[in-house]
Amino acid sequence: MARVVVDVMLKSEILDPQGEAVLGALPRLGVTDVASVRIGKRVEIEFGENAQNVEEQSRVIADQLLANPVIESFTVAVERGSNEGA
Amino acid sequence: MARVVVDVMLKSEILDPQGEAVLGALPRLGVTDVASVRIGKRVEIEFGENAQNVEEQSRVIADQLLANPVIESFTVAVERGSNEGA
Repeated sequence: MARVVVDVMLKSEILDPQGEAVLGALPRLGVTDVASVRIGKRVEIEFGENAQNVEEQSRVIADQLLANPVIESFTVAVERGSNEGA
Repeated sequence: MARVVVDVMLKSEILDPQGEAVLGALPRLGVTDVASVRIGKRVEIEFGENAQNVEEQSRVIADQLLANPVIESFTVAVERGSNEGA
């Protein structure tokens, strides 16, 4: 059974208001050494026992469903081999 | 300059409607081998040059600001050493 993690982040040139809000709240926690905070999505996809080409399929999912390619970029990482347990 | 990644995910026993929605949309992309999809947050925190105890500070941020400990769990990973470039 393969597990794939897709991380979707706003591109660096895109303003991240959610991250800015967290950054602005940090001094209240006594944290003053932070230069920037960026917030994105982490998607964990669990494939079935006999799934093939999990990385390729995950790229299709990320590209067409999870990320907006105009403002976001994504990375795909296979955490467990697709043939494990098959 | 240290970079810390905090991943915040819903606990496994908590229903994830956003993940369920993605799962339900996968057959339209021709992907039928997925058992589950869970969607959480990925937070990238960039600390300043002279920041100390970045892992500890990140845990405070995650615990008090980023995660709701009732329904979410988080992991903290330091990607670059806190003394690098200091």
